Amino acid sequence: MIPVITAFEQSPDEGRGLARDMPVRWALEEAGQPYEVRLVSFAAMKEPAHRALQPFGQIPTYEEGGLVLFESGAIVLHIAGRHAGLLPDDADARARAVAWMFAALNTVELPIVELEQALYLERDRPWCEARLPLLEDRVRVRLEALSGRLGAADWLDGAFSAGDLLMVSALRRLAGSGILGGYPDLSAYVARGEARPAFKRAFAAQRAVWAGRP
Amino acid sequence: MIPVITAFEQSPDEGRGLARDMPVRWALEEAGQPYEVRLVSFAAMKEPAHRALQPFGQIPTYEEGGLVLFESGAIVLHIAGRHAGLLPDDADARARAVAWMFAALNTVELPIVELEQALYLERDRPWCEARLPLLEDRVRVRLEALSGRLGAADWLDGAFSAGDLLMVSALRRLAGSGILGGYPDLSAYVARGEARPAFKRAFAAQRAVWAGRP
Repeated sequence: MIPVITAFEQSPDEGRGLARDMPVRWALEEAGQPYEVRLVSFAAMKEPAHRALQPFGQIPTYEEGGLVLFESGAIVLHIAGRHAGLLPDDADARARAVAWMFAALNTVELPIVELEQALYLERDRPWCEARLPLLEDRVRVRLEALSGRLGAADWLDGAFSAGDLLMVSALRRLAGSGILGGYPDLSAYVARGEARPAFKRAFAAQRAVWAGRP
Repeated sequence: MIPVITAFEQSPDEGRGLARDMPVRWALEEAGQPYEVRLVSFAAMKEPAHRALQPFGQIPTYEEGGLVLFESGAIVLHIAGRHAGLLPDDADARARAVAWMFAALNTVELPIVELEQALYLERDRPWCEARLPLLEDRVRVRLEALSGRLGAADWLDGAFSAGDLLMVSALRRLAGSGILGGYPDLSAYVARGEARPAFKRAFAAQRAVWAGRP
């Protein structure tokens, strides 16, 4: 049974792999699991047919037989639970890897998304420029802590895991902001993630959609 | 082995149960799992000893034998995976309940936290009042979708699950904002969560800390 995921018909990030299908594609590639992609337009995402799969009218979704899932974190965890390569075997180490998944999506990504939203949704507001330093500082507080924990290690807790997959994905959203450059260890961590063959295959696949060659 | 969690020594919400130890306490109570609490001061949270358990200097943490976990979502999922009552037995239904956990923490809670941060961290800024309607609208977009999915059901997907536990916890953060009142079905959903005996025990336990009677 080959799973089917949904992705943007027209990627708003112009193929930079920042949409939420990217971590799902990456996880599927790490797992060696073939998948199919159904592209969805912005209009169709808000229609009842898509909302039956994704109540909030977003991508990605994941369909596998009778199972329908949404939320990229949940989909990655589902894939990680069924295939080798994304979670350690030891139960305690597995729970810690899952903790890093939640840390990536909540603790680290939240201020990054806040910064993005300020730039995308409030760019024309009179307060936008004045707020940016506050938002950048909130991101830095998280990066400082993350950097302190990562130390000289390659990955957050032993071997590469779904926690690293989501953390690298969160940090990639900072590309172009200049903030990540202040943390050479975290920049190198992101580069290690992007160098993985599975990442490269996933990235190329989503980029081909943007380039009109799906 | 009785797990030990950490919580604020002085609750900034004055005992309203909005700190992140609350969903962990609630999950432990649903699971019928006794636990101990170690209170941490704001100063101690930022010290190396606590950061060794929680890299971002926050609460809660969860210690059980040699296992140390952080992130309330991960801790609730860990508890839910080891005890009956928080996740369905069927594998597909289980994956869907986990999807609601991520939806609660990411999709629904994110704009609620943004609204909170505007009120707590930017109250004295000249733009605060002008931004509030934008932030409230972002929350309403999520509540509208959530309300549409919940419909006439008691819980999000069959029986009460860890997904409902985290979703009710996210919505409770809106208490006092007046926004939730616009969605009588969601208000009733929160009230159903708060009426659960396990919720009440967890709420009383965290409130006793605030009242100086731990």
